Amino acid sequence: MNTYDEDNIFAKILRNELPCHKVYEDEYTFVLMDIMPRGTGHCLVLPKRPARTIIDADDLMLAQVYSTVRKISKASLKAFNADGLTIQQFNEPAGGQVVFHLHVHIIPRFKGTKLRPHTEEMESNEVLAENAKQIIRVLETSA
Amino acid sequence: MNTYDEDNIFAKILRNELPCHKVYEDEYTFVLMDIMPRGTGHCLVLPKRPARTIIDADDLMLAQVYSTVRKISKASLKAFNADGLTIQQFNEPAGGQVVFHLHVHIIPRFKGTKLRPHTEEMESNEVLAENAKQIIRVLETSA
Repeated sequence: MNTYDEDNIFAKILRNELPCHKVYEDEYTFVLMDIMPRGTGHCLVLPKRPARTIIDADDLMLAQVYSTVRKISKASLKAFNADGLTIQQFNEPAGGQVVFHLHVHIIPRFKGTKLRPHTEEMESNEVLAENAKQIIRVLETSA
Repeated sequence: MNTYDEDNIFAKILRNELPCHKVYEDEYTFVLMDIMPRGTGHCLVLPKRPARTIIDADDLMLAQVYSTVRKISKASLKAFNADGLTIQQFNEPAGGQVVFHLHVHIIPRFKGTKLRPHTEEMESNEVLAENAKQIIRVLETSA
């Protein structure tokens, strides 16, 4: 596989060089809203350590990432009163990856609502901030 | 979320009551070919313990499952000389889930080739057996 580019967008967000709609953070992982959501509440879980794809990750990193994926999945279901969740992780451009720092998509799903296509259209900051707040509120009350 | 149905297809496969194209097995996980593949070499990683969705899973189960996902991802990339991997995990019907035992899809991807739609068309046993064999061969030689 290819090497890790220290200047990818998520690396910059993790270094606080770019803003984001942050949802959660612990020692090993970071969660933010996807700015081009394919559904309401679509967020992303990142390891803090660098890894381009699942091939570069180690078992410990994946355990940390998916522990957070589970935590945020539970909170998102409740926050958006969703009927299900689609969880995706893309590796390399052929696999659907666009930003080359390993990340897991958590997309709350609703009966009868298809995933939005990759429109490349950005969601408004107001909506993203409000959706982040809804997940955070559930995380805080269930802690 | 809903409860676990002991008679789902994957529970039966894990109890050896139904056949499958097995790729790999360890103490905690089981890997088989998807019989309606959305791409060449599409396989599924299951925990052996019962869990309907990621919501019922615990952190240990997810660590075990994603350790195997990583192992099989590496082997699949090599076995099919793929350009990338799409990894998906669906929860509840609204999330895309069809069989209600937690499972992770690993789909090798190739430049210029889209995911096949969910045609509900079964792949032939010959092709599934041959693809399983290719992954197994890589697992054996890299062990």
